[in-house]
Amino acid sequence: MEGSFAVKGTIAFTAQRDKFTIVENAYLVCQGQRVAGVYQTLPAACQKIPVLDMGARFVLPGTCDLHVHASQFAFQGMGQNIENGKWNTWFDRYAFPDESRFQNHAYAERTYTDFAKALLKTPTTRLCAYATTDRVATEILMHILAGYGFAGYVGKVNMDRNCGDGLLETTQETLEETRRWLDQGAVGGIEPIITPRYFPSCTTEALAGLGRLAEEYRTPVQSHLSEGLDEIEWVKELDPTLDCYIQAYDRAGLLSPVHPVIMAHCVFPTPEEFSLLRSRNVIVAHCPQSNLNSSGRAAPVIDYLDAGIAVGLGTDVGGGNTLHMFRTIFEAILASKVRWAYTTDHPEQISDRQVLTLPGAFYLATKGGGALWHTGSFEPGYCFDAVVLDDSRFCQRADRTPYERLERLITMSDDRDIVAKYINGSCVYMREGEK
Amino acid sequence: MEGSFAVKGTIAFTAQRDKFTIVENAYLVCQGQRVAGVYQTLPAACQKIPVLDMGARFVLPGTCDLHVHASQFAFQGMGQNIENGKWNTWFDRYAFPDESRFQNHAYAERTYTDFAKALLKTPTTRLCAYATTDRVATEILMHILAGYGFAGYVGKVNMDRNCGDGLLETTQETLEETRRWLDQGAVGGIEPIITPRYFPSCTTEALAGLGRLAEEYRTPVQSHLSEGLDEIEWVKELDPTLDCYIQAYDRAGLLSPVHPVIMAHCVFPTPEEFSLLRSRNVIVAHCPQSNLNSSGRAAPVIDYLDAGIAVGLGTDVGGGNTLHMFRTIFEAILASKVRWAYTTDHPEQISDRQVLTLPGAFYLATKGGGALWHTGSFEPGYCFDAVVLDDSRFCQRADRTPYERLERLITMSDDRDIVAKYINGSCVYMREGEK
Repeated sequence: MEGSFAVKGTIAFTAQRDKFTIVENAYLVCQGQRVAGVYQTLPAACQKIPVLDMGARFVLPGTCDLHVHASQFAFQGMGQNIENGKWNTWFDRYAFPDESRFQNHAYAERTYTDFAKALLKTPTTRLCAYATTDRVATEILMHILAGYGFAGYVGKVNMDRNCGDGLLETTQETLEETRRWLDQGAVGGIEPIITPRYFPSCTTEALAGLGRLAEEYRTPVQSHLSEGLDEIEWVKELDPTLDCYIQAYDRAGLLSPVHPVIMAHCVFPTPEEFSLLRSRNVIVAHCPQSNLNSSGRAAPVIDYLDAGIAVGLGTDVGGGNTLHMFRTIFEAILASKVRWAYTTDHPEQISDRQVLTLPGAFYLATKGGGALWHTGSFEPGYCFDAVVLDDSRFCQRADRTPYERLERLITMSDDRDIVAKYINGSCVYMREGEK
Repeated sequence: MEGSFAVKGTIAFTAQRDKFTIVENAYLVCQGQRVAGVYQTLPAACQKIPVLDMGARFVLPGTCDLHVHASQFAFQGMGQNIENGKWNTWFDRYAFPDESRFQNHAYAERTYTDFAKALLKTPTTRLCAYATTDRVATEILMHILAGYGFAGYVGKVNMDRNCGDGLLETTQETLEETRRWLDQGAVGGIEPIITPRYFPSCTTEALAGLGRLAEEYRTPVQSHLSEGLDEIEWVKELDPTLDCYIQAYDRAGLLSPVHPVIMAHCVFPTPEEFSLLRSRNVIVAHCPQSNLNSSGRAAPVIDYLDAGIAVGLGTDVGGGNTLHMFRTIFEAILASKVRWAYTTDHPEQISDRQVLTLPGAFYLATKGGGALWHTGSFEPGYCFDAVVLDDSRFCQRADRTPYERLERLITMSDDRDIVAKYINGSCVYMREGEK
């Protein structure tokens, strides 16, 4: 049992959808970077392992942010009204000018460090991040995230059409740079993910080349899909032969079964698109805040889940204004209620309501997205990614059940309440003043 | 100019909907508890008044929370899933048991003090609060809020049917207790507001008696209206002669022109109800988070505004999970987008989109609700209610415009960023470490 340890506290996780497992005064045992189990009393073989006693504090699986633009961190929260208007205005005014700054690698170093530091004080342990088109800046982001102990994927963005000054690559450049970057491989726990921004900013030739690279390197793929109605119109104009948006990625061989595929948003699937999402085992990165804020619509998450399509949650910073996935959990619940209320015939029959519950949304944020890395739960064998949270700021009364405390923690806590964080069994963060 | 002073900083407010006035390095002058004006250079007559120099920090009008249950503060953030289910379950499980605790006046003192302290660290300066049926506890809340320097209205709740154990009053009791309480009058800046909880929990006789009291004492009135579809069904069952829900209040004389009337929610107005809201000059307290979370629907705020109906914003704690009105501003924008997207024929024509802008929602939170007290703006003559905010946590780059800084402040800040607060020209809060 050398190297094993336990964290003691109020342990909560969602092994299945819609149900929290909550055990008070319990031990979460880590053995070889994996969860060995959750125990009321330590097993005989573990009697001598170090125990970090967190008292009544919560020990939860880390959240997995399946869609976040690290390069947009510097302007999150801005552009609220512009999003009301035309799709491209937001890109032209904020995203593209800001992303082009990362060619200055000192700026990249500084801004990505700010991003990683902020992320450290959230419950997130793993992420699927977008960098920019700049390969070196992408590697800088990978090194910084790995340096802070994070795990997950980082993508060098590909764009060989329809993008701002200073970001546009030729088709040849974008493929060559991607290959060069893939040849570097992983940095610590941070692996590369092929990242064509989206069909409007990638030619068919570039997409096909990226499809071949994904197959050759067995590298996962991420992109955007069906986020806005005007975007979808644009896709149709760009290629009238497409039956649906996702077909652009499918034709390019990007949805191959040899690697995971994450598609962000997926708000407006046609029946054809829905079928392809399912048959190609695409993982949907649901970004409720960003979707409600840009289109006013909510993705059909319950339909996806009912059809067996995997769903995780994403903050979509900078389209979203927070890196804190607990806020995303709350907004995923709101979004599911909105969708139900406005798209069913009898919204007054609330007893039939098909919406995300609190444990259901928590599941998506942890085990749902965590399926990419076998993490997000405390079942034996899962990667030991855990976060310790202090709810004493919200715990004025002693008669609250652990479930009620957890509800308040999820809906009210912020960076101040993160006590400690573990990724792959290593402690990557400890709050100032804790030992 | 004795007693006058100025606060210097980046001054921003919305004298009109959809447009921020932002002036950097400007002086906001207070004279006799009122705003004298905003100046780039101090007028000659003001040369000797004390100036509090806040540097580049923002000076904004305080927000007005038009709907908040002070008595539900202790369980805000709880009951997420229960709200998914039946209307009354949430009352039976959380609201009623918690509200009955306030008959213990030591508990009331403690919980209302926690509420006031938390409210101090938000941008809110004025509020329309619900206490409980307990008259003495209501007076305790008034004293506590006044003691912390707040202004606004507090209501003793009336319920003489359909409510939990320990809260039910007889019709005679509820009217007598209300009169006794009205005879006490205001406590500092906190005035009484007549508060029948809602039609299902008040008999017609009680409502009529309260209508007479409102007329006699010229006291404002607040209640709930058309929040949930099952609630509206229940109202119809309780009185099948009603043309619409609000008629229950109108018949009781509660919508008299001699006093202001605030109705919370108003999510599902029938055409008749819409007309009565307008003709009776009712002020709508729009609670976007609470509405999205309970019914999944958004109130027709743009329609109200277009029809000349006054609208303010409310947090609806504990149906809402935050006292911080900046969050409510953001959620009001989201709710307006949701409503537009799901109820218009051509949601893809986003250039025609009728939604709340950031200054539009800010206006509702300040001058909109502030109409009750002639506050919420920095035009000359307005009550001097101001809050100083520090955006240095979100200001990593020097090239942001004041508008962009303000966007980030509104979407990202919390209690830590409140530097100072003034109500009626008095400083009621100064952050620790500030002078």
